[in-house]
Amino acid sequence: MAVRAAVAGASGYAGGEVLRLLLGHPEVEIGTLTGNSHAGRRLGELQPHLLPLADRVLDETTPEALAGHDVVFLALPHGHSAAVAEQLGPDVLVVDLGADFRLRNPADWERFYGSPHAGTWPYGLPELPGARAALEGSKRIAVPGCYPTAASLALAPAYAASLIEPEAVIVAASGTSGAGKSPKPHLLGSEVMGSMSPYGVGGGHRHTPEMIQNLSAAAGEPVTVSFTPTLAPMSRGILATCSARARDGVTADAVRAAYAKAYADEPFVHLLPEGQWPATAAVYGSNAVQLQVAYDPAAHRVVAISAIDNLTKGTAGGAVQSMNIALGLPEETGLSTIGVAP
Amino acid sequence: MAVRAAVAGASGYAGGEVLRLLLGHPEVEIGTLTGNSHAGRRLGELQPHLLPLADRVLDETTPEALAGHDVVFLALPHGHSAAVAEQLGPDVLVVDLGADFRLRNPADWERFYGSPHAGTWPYGLPELPGARAALEGSKRIAVPGCYPTAASLALAPAYAASLIEPEAVIVAASGTSGAGKSPKPHLLGSEVMGSMSPYGVGGGHRHTPEMIQNLSAAAGEPVTVSFTPTLAPMSRGILATCSARARDGVTADAVRAAYAKAYADEPFVHLLPEGQWPATAAVYGSNAVQLQVAYDPAAHRVVAISAIDNLTKGTAGGAVQSMNIALGLPEETGLSTIGVAP
Amino acid sequence: MAVRAAVAGASGYAGGEVLRLLLGHPEVEIGTLTGNSHAGRRLGELQPHLLPLADRVLDETTPEALAGHDVVFLALPHGHSAAVAEQLGPDVLVVDLGADFRLRNPADWERFYGSPHAGTWPYGLPELPGARAALEGSKRIAVPGCYPTAASLALAPAYAASLIEPEAVIVAASGTSGAGKSPKPHLLGSEVMGSMSPYGVGGGHRHTPEMIQNLSAAAGEPVTVSFTPTLAPMSRGILATCSARARDGVTADAVRAAYAKAYADEPFVHLLPEGQWPATAAVYGSNAVQLQVAYDPAAHRVVAISAIDNLTKGTAGGAVQSMNIALGLPEETGLSTIGVAP
Amino acid sequence: MAVRAAVAGASGYAGGEVLRLLLGHPEVEIGTLTGNSHAGRRLGELQPHLLPLADRVLDETTPEALAGHDVVFLALPHGHSAAVAEQLGPDVLVVDLGADFRLRNPADWERFYGSPHAGTWPYGLPELPGARAALEGSKRIAVPGCYPTAASLALAPAYAASLIEPEAVIVAASGTSGAGKSPKPHLLGSEVMGSMSPYGVGGGHRHTPEMIQNLSAAAGEPVTVSFTPTLAPMSRGILATCSARARDGVTADAVRAAYAKAYADEPFVHLLPEGQWPATAAVYGSNAVQLQVAYDPAAHRVVAISAIDNLTKGTAGGAVQSMNIALGLPEETGLSTIGVAP
Repeated sequence: MAVRAAVAGASGYAGGEVLRLLLGHPEVEIGTLTGNSHAGRRLGELQPHLLPLADRVLDETTPEALAGHDVVFLALPHGHSAAVAEQLGPDVLVVDLGADFRLRNPADWERFYGSPHAGTWPYGLPELPGARAALEGSKRIAVPGCYPTAASLALAPAYAASLIEPEAVIVAASGTSGAGKSPKPHLLGSEVMGSMSPYGVGGGHRHTPEMIQNLSAAAGEPVTVSFTPTLAPMSRGILATCSARARDGVTADAVRAAYAKAYADEPFVHLLPEGQWPATAAVYGSNAVQLQVAYDPAAHRVVAISAIDNLTKGTAGGAVQSMNIALGLPEETGLSTIGVAP
Repeated sequence: MAVRAAVAGASGYAGGEVLRLLLGHPEVEIGTLTGNSHAGRRLGELQPHLLPLADRVLDETTPEALAGHDVVFLALPHGHSAAVAEQLGPDVLVVDLGADFRLRNPADWERFYGSPHAGTWPYGLPELPGARAALEGSKRIAVPGCYPTAASLALAPAYAASLIEPEAVIVAASGTSGAGKSPKPHLLGSEVMGSMSPYGVGGGHRHTPEMIQNLSAAAGEPVTVSFTPTLAPMSRGILATCSARARDGVTADAVRAAYAKAYADEPFVHLLPEGQWPATAAVYGSNAVQLQVAYDPAAHRVVAISAIDNLTKGTAGGAVQSMNIALGLPEETGLSTIGVAP
Repeated sequence: MAVRAAVAGASGYAGGEVLRLLLGHPEVEIGTLTGNSHAGRRLGELQPHLLPLADRVLDETTPEALAGHDVVFLALPHGHSAAVAEQLGPDVLVVDLGADFRLRNPADWERFYGSPHAGTWPYGLPELPGARAALEGSKRIAVPGCYPTAASLALAPAYAASLIEPEAVIVAASGTSGAGKSPKPHLLGSEVMGSMSPYGVGGGHRHTPEMIQNLSAAAGEPVTVSFTPTLAPMSRGILATCSARARDGVTADAVRAAYAKAYADEPFVHLLPEGQWPATAAVYGSNAVQLQVAYDPAAHRVVAISAIDNLTKGTAGGAVQSMNIALGLPEETGLSTIGVAP
Repeated sequence: MAVRAAVAGASGYAGGEVLRLLLGHPEVEIGTLTGNSHAGRRLGELQPHLLPLADRVLDETTPEALAGHDVVFLALPHGHSAAVAEQLGPDVLVVDLGADFRLRNPADWERFYGSPHAGTWPYGLPELPGARAALEGSKRIAVPGCYPTAASLALAPAYAASLIEPEAVIVAASGTSGAGKSPKPHLLGSEVMGSMSPYGVGGGHRHTPEMIQNLSAAAGEPVTVSFTPTLAPMSRGILATCSARARDGVTADAVRAAYAKAYADEPFVHLLPEGQWPATAAVYGSNAVQLQVAYDPAAHRVVAISAIDNLTKGTAGGAVQSMNIALGLPEETGLSTIGVAP
């Protein structure tokens, strides 16, 4: 019997990617699609790449429209998920692609978002220690941010194995879809093509506390994070260059062994052979994380670099993966490690 | 029982795309992979997006390596397919992604390729009149060129319905993957990013006789083609802008009706609603053709524009679609009309 | 004594490009800059590439702000130039980068713009027959549209020499800056990168009557134009592929001779050597037009392809070139034929 | 009396950019152009953007061809400059755009380049302490690498003012022109568009010792550098994200003051207003460095980010700037701080 899924916010990039993946999911039947500002319009106008759904018409995001589904994906602006989730009842699996339920510390939420904290849900990054178990059978899932997905998977094994000091430096390049579909001047094609630019420098990006939360948990002690996100001239993909000072006595072999062990059984995280470095093109449209790590003896740092598709593993793919776990389906169902390249 | 498929030329873009699609094909088991200049290397180095095949090692393209398969895909430079095909025997389905067996007229071949003509195989564009029947049960398939796929599907209905005069003007923009993976200075990222440029102008492109062949067959009379290919700053996709003078008495309604009828039952060709025009991003990685047509009364021309992914519907997807027909499998098996966007 | 120039609409792409060129113009002193929605802001925030003007603050577009200049460039939305121009007085050189004064036929204006026609000013494409003389000493200049610049220069010599029939087919690819800096969803980087898409197909684009006007004048008889503009994944540049049926008896030599003669003395139009085709990258940031033409005997068509920078020769460079003529300065002052490549 | 300049290696990206700038330099006359593999070819085929030099023909790189010039620019593969320079005599100003004479420590050279060290010339980054004086009147100039230019200018003020600890972390994104014009598979447009990828991770990049040299000199003590270069999908530009742990007691004001003071009189280095961050598009084709710095109190790090055009300030512009100093010309002659944007 099919799992019936609704998507609130189906006209945006995150919602569209959820639909792209659900269309290929053998256990899911796609139910209601909503999108407030575009209610009444055909999906074919808004998401022309989703041909099988071209004639679907968007509803308004109301409790009535979302009722009667087994799973509801919320791809809404931050701050809007709690109200919708409350009305859905405790038996519906609610998968929030927004930020509302990711942080454990209300003070972090309030500082970075300026509004009351809605709560904390099981965190949908099953590759982190303990995360998978918390997702099993859960009716609520907080899907991680795209940058925290890339950076946490890159550094967690080194922290878990006590190989690096608790001061991480993360510089990540993201495709523009991470900034959403709301038209803003700095996101125009004319502005982004041929240009790299940073933003939210110096600790201001809202994904920083989420990274600190994940890496501190892995390390078992507080970790500071210097995070610089940059906008790259591409639609999709995150390349996260992450490093920290090596602890004394660390060797290249120990580093590699820690990563190989951490991800040996993970279906979506792939440690590349030595000497090969990840490229975002190789994970385009896929749920894979391609990862490499090196120890630089001259600088005495461990450098780990991960490539993900920000919309797939970084958003919708991570959401579907966690949904599979929550529903007791095989974790890889409907997901792929095959990128669309070149 | 699985169909066992080999791919000769697995390190290039066409071969890589065949593999990407076969990995998702439920009836196919991937056998030998060959690639002469890269024999002995891991596929993971050459096609890092094909994670499930990362540890496969390329063989040399020999009859021994290719023996024992039900289907052999040939993704070789033109002129090399005939010799390989001969050695494979008449019971193996040979799908040639190269140009060798596309043209019916030996003189055309010799003029554009400068070598003796190898022959003519059933043509793998099932949406053309009569083509599907010729593919059923066939053991040999000539996969169309990417430009001819886009242009022929754009204009064939108008020719078949006698709506336009036999002088077609085709201007097409292609992503750079259509030019292959052999490094050449004009294909460097530094050269192509931020630039549009034409090539093979004035009748010189090798896909011209193939378009003439297809459109003349549809029209039932000789059609001339003025074809200008241009290189666009993108990896994938073809946008073909095709037009011809309308015959007297033609109306916008008659044009639309002819296209709607021609493609009503086609699973991969999608005539867009009036007013919506195709974009290559919407068919990225998919086997769909998105198509629109208009009648311009002031210029007295019919303008048809199609968008395809040059590597999918334009090459490997068309190949798999035709393989399905030849093998008696449902035509859509392993293929998708869903693009990866944005 | 310096020419004092004001720019109304200095925050947009056209206004910014005028300023980029004026900064390098030895006879011009940059005066007031206006921009209604951004009045009061530093130019450094809005046009960070114009470092020498970073501390300039934008004024509102009022007669007072624009008073006291020798030249006023209007880079305003269409329909706004007439009111501003009237207030500037007859002795000020007004250079309108908008569409308002380009068309001679009020009916064309009304049909494509839906408002009363403001009038017709001397047309700033000096390379067209008769145009240079009309600009000399003029106090009003209508700068051509970017597509009409590329297409008219590509086909005018063939029409002037009666080499082609009066039915032109023009397919042009443009960088996204041609669509302006107003944020709209389809212009987002996420949408345009990796995609080619047409718009205004079938005679609907507002540049069509301007092309018809120019080509008909060159031909001495009414010319129809089938024009398809496409949006290309690049910030700047237009590649215009233009063709028409050859008249009987036309030869490749006659075609080449006509173009060589037409542009022999033009400082900015460069007919490439035979066999070399233009690329937009080669004219990036320059006022040059790179052009090639061929006769295709099989299709019996003349194909002319031009590459320009839509913001330079297609907008601001054409404006400065015409200003030079109007002011009696050497035509090339402050302009360059050198592109920024790769 | 004009300075007569030759360019050896005129067919590559560095040589082409030198020519682009020299064409706009009022004191320079362009003499011989050489390019071994392309000797005998027209420059118009190889560098179609340099229209005024289109009919120049390349010579072989011989002492005879390069004789009789006041300045010779060497844009050659590393290891080739010493032999050419020796033959030019001590009175000719030799400006080497390659790496051969940048490093002071022969052991560094031998370790990273594997060949005997040719020597050390005055270093062409005049904004570094003491560098300008060493260039005045010099007949030999070693032009810095593009990454070291961006990174050294970003961090030198903080080191000179003792604000940060001697362990720098530098992650830089570069356009593909930095990798040159030699066609290699990973530099194909199909590979780089839509992709970010690192290379030379873990201390392996040849620009690392040059950065260490510059930053250690600024700090007055040995500085370690963790450098990760990444290839970005754009032709030009470097965005360098550079950070180090703040020393105790450092404040945001002290950091800003140090940078403001360091670059107050520099014509090409522009510290942006607080809150505005650099983008590579804003320096496209210009010799400017746009720079911003912040103190992140939570991570206790100073983060400085610079944007340059890798071919202009990072290569040819830096070369011309240093040439101006060596020849006693005003330093800004022929150079611009105006980018070509959008």
